Amino acid sequence: MSNRMVRLAQRPTGMIKREDFSIEDGPVPQPGAGEFRVRIQYISLDPAMRGWVNDGKSYVAPVGIGEVMRGYAVGTIEASNNPAFKVGDAVQGLLGVQTYAISNGKGVVQVDPGQAPLQRWVGGLGMPGWTAYFGLLEVGQPKAGETVVVSAASGAVGSLVGQIAKIKGCRAVGIAGGPDKCRYVTQELGFDACVDYKAGNLAADLKAAAPNGIDVNFENVGGEILDTVLAQMNLFGRIAVCGLISAYNATQAPQGPKNLRAVLTQRLRMQGLIVFDWANRVPEAIAQLGQWHKEGKLKIREDVREGGIDAFPDVLNLLYTGGNNGKLVLKV
Amino acid sequence: MSNRMVRLAQRPTGMIKREDFSIEDGPVPQPGAGEFRVRIQYISLDPAMRGWVNDGKSYVAPVGIGEVMRGYAVGTIEASNNPAFKVGDAVQGLLGVQTYAISNGKGVVQVDPGQAPLQRWVGGLGMPGWTAYFGLLEVGQPKAGETVVVSAASGAVGSLVGQIAKIKGCRAVGIAGGPDKCRYVTQELGFDACVDYKAGNLAADLKAAAPNGIDVNFENVGGEILDTVLAQMNLFGRIAVCGLISAYNATQAPQGPKNLRAVLTQRLRMQGLIVFDWANRVPEAIAQLGQWHKEGKLKIREDVREGGIDAFPDVLNLLYTGGNNGKLVLKV
Repeated sequence: MSNRMVRLAQRPTGMIKREDFSIEDGPVPQPGAGEFRVRIQYISLDPAMRGWVNDGKSYVAPVGIGEVMRGYAVGTIEASNNPAFKVGDAVQGLLGVQTYAISNGKGVVQVDPGQAPLQRWVGGLGMPGWTAYFGLLEVGQPKAGETVVVSAASGAVGSLVGQIAKIKGCRAVGIAGGPDKCRYVTQELGFDACVDYKAGNLAADLKAAAPNGIDVNFENVGGEILDTVLAQMNLFGRIAVCGLISAYNATQAPQGPKNLRAVLTQRLRMQGLIVFDWANRVPEAIAQLGQWHKEGKLKIREDVREGGIDAFPDVLNLLYTGGNNGKLVLKV
Repeated sequence: MSNRMVRLAQRPTGMIKREDFSIEDGPVPQPGAGEFRVRIQYISLDPAMRGWVNDGKSYVAPVGIGEVMRGYAVGTIEASNNPAFKVGDAVQGLLGVQTYAISNGKGVVQVDPGQAPLQRWVGGLGMPGWTAYFGLLEVGQPKAGETVVVSAASGAVGSLVGQIAKIKGCRAVGIAGGPDKCRYVTQELGFDACVDYKAGNLAADLKAAAPNGIDVNFENVGGEILDTVLAQMNLFGRIAVCGLISAYNATQAPQGPKNLRAVLTQRLRMQGLIVFDWANRVPEAIAQLGQWHKEGKLKIREDVREGGIDAFPDVLNLLYTGGNNGKLVLKV
């Protein structure tokens, strides 16, 4: 028995490569006083991971060279010296890309495998769900009757944003890459429309899908998609900036939106969000998302990949090439 | 006696040229029922004018070809069929770039030449003053002890923004072009610091002037200045987008901010503002600005240019070449 770990070997340039990480075995770690050990079963692959391995100022410190890669994971406690976390408890948190993690409980929450399968607790009921919930409702502030546009609409966060918009009485328009994803977004998730940005008529297709203009944009992508959306925003519209994945692998500073002038002329509010800022309200998000899910109002799907720890670099890259469909999770 | 008018002859490309306007005489207009005639004495030159002569979607309809150029002006009523506006009253409003205007009173307000000279009512106590007041306080929401950075700091709006920031207990940092303007901003207006963007070390000089980072940015310029500010914004900072003058004469779509990612990582709020949105609170702004001015807390200066109506195109261009110092006003 050993702990298999993904360590950062060097800072990637452009797309992540296997050699940016070293994957190695170590002894199974033993919990110290107040600590417990988790056997990790599912690891979340998140677009933010690309930023975490960059040097430079961001919302969290970069992963250091030689450190275990940061990552959300869910698993089961095997050994514990912490009375609040018992052997057998299922827990979720930033446990890292490895097979065994030691924690003192900080930032780790118990989850209920009876309510939903384990992988869902790093998906629709985990961080992506909380991000969609707080980002749309607190930053986007959609009102019934308004049009909400979300990019990366078939992804972990986007798929929930559109469904929550529908629950709130809005017109939900997705932007996704390819007819299969768009079909999933409209037919399975129930969005009112979905625009295929790969079809080559983004501006016209978006105009047709959002004929009354855009009141709320939940932005996951940036680049040309954000620029096109900016030009169609309504007066006093809101842009919740959750991600700018189109630029995460850029090796040169990306060009910003040409249509920034719309922020001025339309009096838009463009606001960044990081889900950590609502850390103390996570139970509310879990309760509400869980209830909507139970009522059949919220469909949640994970795209679970096999291959274990060793597949991490390749599976992660699916996020940046659009290769996943729904929340991407690695089974350990 | 005739009415000399500046009419839009063609839509400008790039910098405004004289031939974009035709300057011509017409009969002095006579007020109809409910109307009055104003003899215009000072015309306000505003950066927004460049946008008003462009075609396309904006916050107001473009000036039509052949129409009198839109402009704020202040003058005296000479003839009136409107009981609310009496002969001899001084008034301010969107009266156009001409020597005589007819109005029914809509959007026109009486001003008090006893409180301040006429030209000030299109300057520090007029639209630029209201813009600084509502834009900084309502959108920027500065708190005592925070650092406020304003670009075009020696201009009509910027000069007031920094002074209001000081009144509110903030550190006020200006950005302006050239040592003379910077000296004016710090020594005459009392900003804590001013960065000369023409000196070639904008990022380092701004860092030195705002050593604790930037909490509020009042943006008048855009382009490289906004990009540099974005990289130095503090967590939960606010960017009030009042103007993007660096792009107003662009003949190609301007490149947007490369550092837009800061909006995400720092959870910034970037919000556009147009002073019209606070139209019903203008009396509050006039009262407060007037009181601060009387108490000596607010210095207001106009850069009044001679030459009358015929000088309009050349004087207007001073705004885009940085040729003015303080609120630019044309004496009729």
